[in-house]
Amino acid sequence: MVQMNPTVGDLDGNVRRIVGWLREARKAKPDLVAFPELAVTGYPPEDLLLKPQFVEDNRRALNEVIHACKDMIAVVGYVGHESMSEPQETASSVLPAGRHELYNSAAIIAERRLVMSYAKWYLPNYGVFDESRYFHPGGRLPLITVNGTVVGVNVCEDIWLPEGPTRCQAAAGADVIVNINASPFHVGKSRSREQMLATRARDNRVIVTYTNTVGGQDELVFDGHSVILDHTGDVIARAKGFEEDLLVADLNIESVARARLAQGRKHTVAGKVAAPVDRLTLSVKAASRRARVIPSAESLVDPLEEVYQALTLGVRDYVRKNGFKRAVIGLSGGIDSALTSVIAVDALGADNVLGVFMPSPYTSTESREDTQELVRRLGIHLKTMPITPALKSYLHTLKGSFQGAKVDTTEENLQARIRGNLLMALSNKFGHLVLTTGNKSEMSVGYATLYGDMAGGFAVIKDVPKTMVYELARRRNRQGQTTVIPKRILDRAPTAELRPNQKDEDNLPPYALLDPILKAYVEDDRSVGEMVCMGFDRKTVLRVVALVDRSEYKRRQAPVGIKITHRGLGKDRRMPITNGYRGV
Amino acid sequence: MVQMNPTVGDLDGNVRRIVGWLREARKAKPDLVAFPELAVTGYPPEDLLLKPQFVEDNRRALNEVIHACKDMIAVVGYVGHESMSEPQETASSVLPAGRHELYNSAAIIAERRLVMSYAKWYLPNYGVFDESRYFHPGGRLPLITVNGTVVGVNVCEDIWLPEGPTRCQAAAGADVIVNINASPFHVGKSRSREQMLATRARDNRVIVTYTNTVGGQDELVFDGHSVILDHTGDVIARAKGFEEDLLVADLNIESVARARLAQGRKHTVAGKVAAPVDRLTLSVKAASRRARVIPSAESLVDPLEEVYQALTLGVRDYVRKNGFKRAVIGLSGGIDSALTSVIAVDALGADNVLGVFMPSPYTSTESREDTQELVRRLGIHLKTMPITPALKSYLHTLKGSFQGAKVDTTEENLQARIRGNLLMALSNKFGHLVLTTGNKSEMSVGYATLYGDMAGGFAVIKDVPKTMVYELARRRNRQGQTTVIPKRILDRAPTAELRPNQKDEDNLPPYALLDPILKAYVEDDRSVGEMVCMGFDRKTVLRVVALVDRSEYKRRQAPVGIKITHRGLGKDRRMPITNGYRGV
Repeated sequence: MVQMNPTVGDLDGNVRRIVGWLREARKAKPDLVAFPELAVTGYPPEDLLLKPQFVEDNRRALNEVIHACKDMIAVVGYVGHESMSEPQETASSVLPAGRHELYNSAAIIAERRLVMSYAKWYLPNYGVFDESRYFHPGGRLPLITVNGTVVGVNVCEDIWLPEGPTRCQAAAGADVIVNINASPFHVGKSRSREQMLATRARDNRVIVTYTNTVGGQDELVFDGHSVILDHTGDVIARAKGFEEDLLVADLNIESVARARLAQGRKHTVAGKVAAPVDRLTLSVKAASRRARVIPSAESLVDPLEEVYQALTLGVRDYVRKNGFKRAVIGLSGGIDSALTSVIAVDALGADNVLGVFMPSPYTSTESREDTQELVRRLGIHLKTMPITPALKSYLHTLKGSFQGAKVDTTEENLQARIRGNLLMALSNKFGHLVLTTGNKSEMSVGYATLYGDMAGGFAVIKDVPKTMVYELARRRNRQGQTTVIPKRILDRAPTAELRPNQKDEDNLPPYALLDPILKAYVEDDRSVGEMVCMGFDRKTVLRVVALVDRSEYKRRQAPVGIKITHRGLGKDRRMPITNGYRGV
Repeated sequence: MVQMNPTVGDLDGNVRRIVGWLREARKAKPDLVAFPELAVTGYPPEDLLLKPQFVEDNRRALNEVIHACKDMIAVVGYVGHESMSEPQETASSVLPAGRHELYNSAAIIAERRLVMSYAKWYLPNYGVFDESRYFHPGGRLPLITVNGTVVGVNVCEDIWLPEGPTRCQAAAGADVIVNINASPFHVGKSRSREQMLATRARDNRVIVTYTNTVGGQDELVFDGHSVILDHTGDVIARAKGFEEDLLVADLNIESVARARLAQGRKHTVAGKVAAPVDRLTLSVKAASRRARVIPSAESLVDPLEEVYQALTLGVRDYVRKNGFKRAVIGLSGGIDSALTSVIAVDALGADNVLGVFMPSPYTSTESREDTQELVRRLGIHLKTMPITPALKSYLHTLKGSFQGAKVDTTEENLQARIRGNLLMALSNKFGHLVLTTGNKSEMSVGYATLYGDMAGGFAVIKDVPKTMVYELARRRNRQGQTTVIPKRILDRAPTAELRPNQKDEDNLPPYALLDPILKAYVEDDRSVGEMVCMGFDRKTVLRVVALVDRSEYKRRQAPVGIKITHRGLGKDRRMPITNGYRGV
C-alpha cells in the first residue's frame, strides 16, 4: 500500500510520484499495490473536473502509470469517463473525455494494461464533500483473482456503508477488500475509522486493506494511517500518520478461508445492492519468488498530538504546494500568535519564519517581553514596527468625518488593519506568506477584524477552539528539551490590547464556557432550547448565537485554514449571509 | 400566481408576506393560488436546513399559512420532512423534524388543510446549487382535480427535463401544470426559460403556469417573470420582472381538452419515470362567482436592461435584508465606481449613498473633476480624504525593512489598502455598507488589491465584464432626462492611478480582447488549445490563464457580489487554491 501525498492538479508531478513509489514497491515483489483515491489528480480536484481537457489529461497521466506497472497488479485512483467496465485499452489509445459522464474510479492495472475499472458507488455530498456535483455513481462489482486470492476493489465512502459493495464482494467470494481513500482528518477520526473498518472486516469475514492519502490540500489534511485488518477485525499492519509511507504485508489468506468454512457463509446480499459482478483472473509471476514480509504496525498517537501534526503538515504543504518558502506572522505576545509561530517553525524551520511585532500605546510591557523571549527561544527573525504613526495619520484624516462621534470599535479596527497592511506589505515585497493567528472561538463569534488580524493567506488555527489552543501549547511545551512558549503567555488573561486594560472576557463569555456553547451551536446544530437544556444560561446562549449569526460576512472573507474538527468554518459550513432566522 | 420576495430564514416575515398576498389574491376569487418554491423559508436556505429546529419551525410556519387558506386551494413551497404523501394533518399537529429526511416540497392546501405534498424529483447539484446536500428526491405524482380541471404540481428543475414529472402528469390526464420555482437570473435566461416552457407545454398539450421567486439573496437575484403558456406554447400571461407581482388569469381548459381529442394522446410514459400517481378531487366554491379575468402580459425588456435591473434589485435587497440603510462607495473618477454609484442611487436613493474621493499624488485633475461632476449629477454626498499622509507614514515605518528593495506593486497595494481602511472606518463608525466597485475582468485576472479596493460588504459589478460595464453605463446615460455619467469618464482610458501615467492596458490585454478570452476560460471551460483555435493569440491566452489561476486566493476572500452571467465567481466557481494544473 502506497500512502502518498499528491498535489491537486499536478498530473505530471503525481505521475512521477506514483512511478517512483512503484519502483520502490517492486523491491518487495508484491502481488498487488494499492494507491489512494484519485491519486492521479489529487483530492479534491473540485471544478477542475468541469474542464474536459483536465479529464483527458488525467487519462493520459494514467496511461503513464499503466506503462510503469511491470510485474505487478496496481490499483490506482483516477477520474473515469467511459462506461463502467472501461474497454481494455492499450496504453496508447486515449479517448477524448468531451462532456462524458465522470466517475470516481479505481483503475485495476495488470501487465501494463488497464484491465478493469471500478466506479465508486456512494458519492459523499455533505460536509466538505461535493462529489455529486461531478461524478455519477457506479453500479458494478469487479472481482479479481490474483494468484488464487479473490480481491474486491472499492473506493472510500463505499466501505462506510454496511450494505455497500464490501458486503456484495464478500458474498461473491472476496477474501480481500482493497479500499482506496482520500479521507480527510478531523480529531478522533483515525480511531473511529478503524472501528468501522474492524466491523466491516469481521461482519464480512474479509481482510480489509485501507489505503489513504496523506498531505495538506487547502483546508483539508489527509492523515494517512493506512491500515490492514484481518477477518477478525484485528489490525495487522498500520502505516505512519501524516507522512508518506509504503506498507508491505503478507496476508494470511488461508485463515480467512478456514474461518469461513468453520462459520458457514451467512451473508445474504440485500436486494437493493445486488449488482453485476465482473470477474477476472490475473497472475503475478514475481510474487512467488519473494521472502515473507512481517507487517509493521505504527501506533496511533493521542488525539491532541494528531491535531498538532495535522496543523504542522497543513502549513508545510500549503506553503510548499503553493510555491512559497517563507512565512511571516504578526506576534502580539498572546497565545494564538505564539502557538501559530511554533507550528510554523516546526513546519518550515526557524530560518523560514519571520515574526513581526507591531506595538501600539496599548501594548503592554509584558507583551513586548514575552514576544522577545518567544522569538529568542524559537530562533526566528523579528521585526518591530510601531503602528502609532500610521494610526495618528488615519485619525487625522478622519477627524472631520468623525467629529462629535464617540470612540468605539472603529479605532480598534484601524489598529488591527494597520497591522494587517504592514504584514501584507512585507508579503508583497518579499514573497512571504502571511499566516493569520485567529482561533475558532474568535472566528465563530466574529471577535476579529476583517482586513486586520484576519488578513493573510492561510489561517493556521482557524478551526482550533481557544481552550484547545492552550492544550496544544502546553503539550508542545512538554515536548523537546526546553519550554518553547514562555509560561507567562500561557498564564496571562487573553487580550486584544486595542484599548486600555482590555480583556477578551470584557466582550465575551469565558472561553471555558464559550467553547462548549460554540461546539453545540456551530458543530452540532443545537437549538437555543436544547443548549439551555444542556445547562447553559439562556442569556449567554442567545448572545453567543447572535454573535455567530451576525459575523457570517466576516467568515466569508476569511482566508482558508486547516480543518481539524468534525465541522470547520470552511467548505463544511455554508450559511447564507442574508439570513433572517433567529431560532427563538 | 404570487411572485413574491421572501427573505431566507425569516419564517415569520415570509408567512406575513404569504398571508398578505393570499388576502390580495382572494379578491380575484381564484380556484388555485401558486407561491414560489420554498416560499416559506426563502431560497436557498443552505445549511440552515441542517438545523432540525429550523425544519420544525418551517413546518410550524406552513401551518400558519394553512390557517389562512380560506376558500382557496394554494400551492406553497416548504421543506417537507415526512413521507411523500404527508399525513393529512390538522394545523395543530406538528411533528418534530429530528434528523428526518428532507424534501423540497410543494404543499397543496385546501380547506385549511394540507391535503397533499409533492416532493421535487430532480435536485440540481451543479452551478450555484447544492440541493443533493440537503434533500432526498421525491418519486410520487400528485394530481388534483379542481372543479373538474386536472392539475399536476411540480417544482422548478422538474420541468426542465423532458421525461420528468410534467410528461408523466400530462400522460395521467393533467390539463394544467403548476410549476413553482426559485430560478436565479443570468443574462438571457428569461428568454431561454420561456422557450423551454413553450416546448414543454406544446409537447405535452398542457397549460404551464410557471411561478417564480423575485428578489436578491446574497449573490443570487431571482428575476420573477412568472409566466403562463397555453397548450400551444404561446405566452398568455406574464408577470413583471424584478418586482413582486400578482398574476391572475382565467385558463381556457376547454381548448386544451379539444386539442387533445383532435390530436389523440400520443404520449407514453417512459419506464424509468413511471411513478405512483396520487389523485384527489377538490372543489372551490368561491370560484364560480367571479368575473372573467383578462390576463396581462408584461413585455420582456432587452437583456442589458435586465442586467441593470438585476444589479439594482440585488443591491437594494442585500442592503435592506441585512438591516443596512446607507451605502458608502469609494469614487476614483473611473467608470467602475461611477456605474456602481449610479446603481446604488437607483437602488437606495441619493440620500442613502455616500461617495468618498481619496486622492493620491497620482490622481489626475480629470479624475477629481469627473468625480465632482458625477456627484453633482447624482445629488449624493461626497467626502474627500487624501491618502498621502497615511501613505507617507506607512513608508516611513517600512523604510528600514524595504531598504535596498525596488519600488513595485507593494507601494500600489498600500495606496489601495489605505483607501479600503478609510471606507471601512466610515462603515464601522456610521453603519454604512461599503460597496466595492471591481468588475469581473479585474476580479478574474486578480487586477485588484486584496483588503484594498476589494474591501467591502457587497461587490455590485463583480460578475460584469469591463466591456459590459461600458455598455451598461452608456445605456443608463441614454435613460432619464440628463446624462448621469460624465462623458469623459466613458472616454478616458481605464487606469488604477497607483503610479505615474499608469494605464490598465500596460498590465493587461485590451478589454475587448481580454473579455472574450475570460468568457471562454472562466465561463465555458475552454482549454488553451481550444482558445487558440478560436483565434486568440497563444501568448496572450497563456498569460490570461496564468493570471486567472494565480489569483484564486484573492477571489476566495472577496465579498459576495451579484451573479449575472452563466457562471459567476461565487458559489458556481469552486476551484482549489492549491492547484498544480496548468493545462498546457
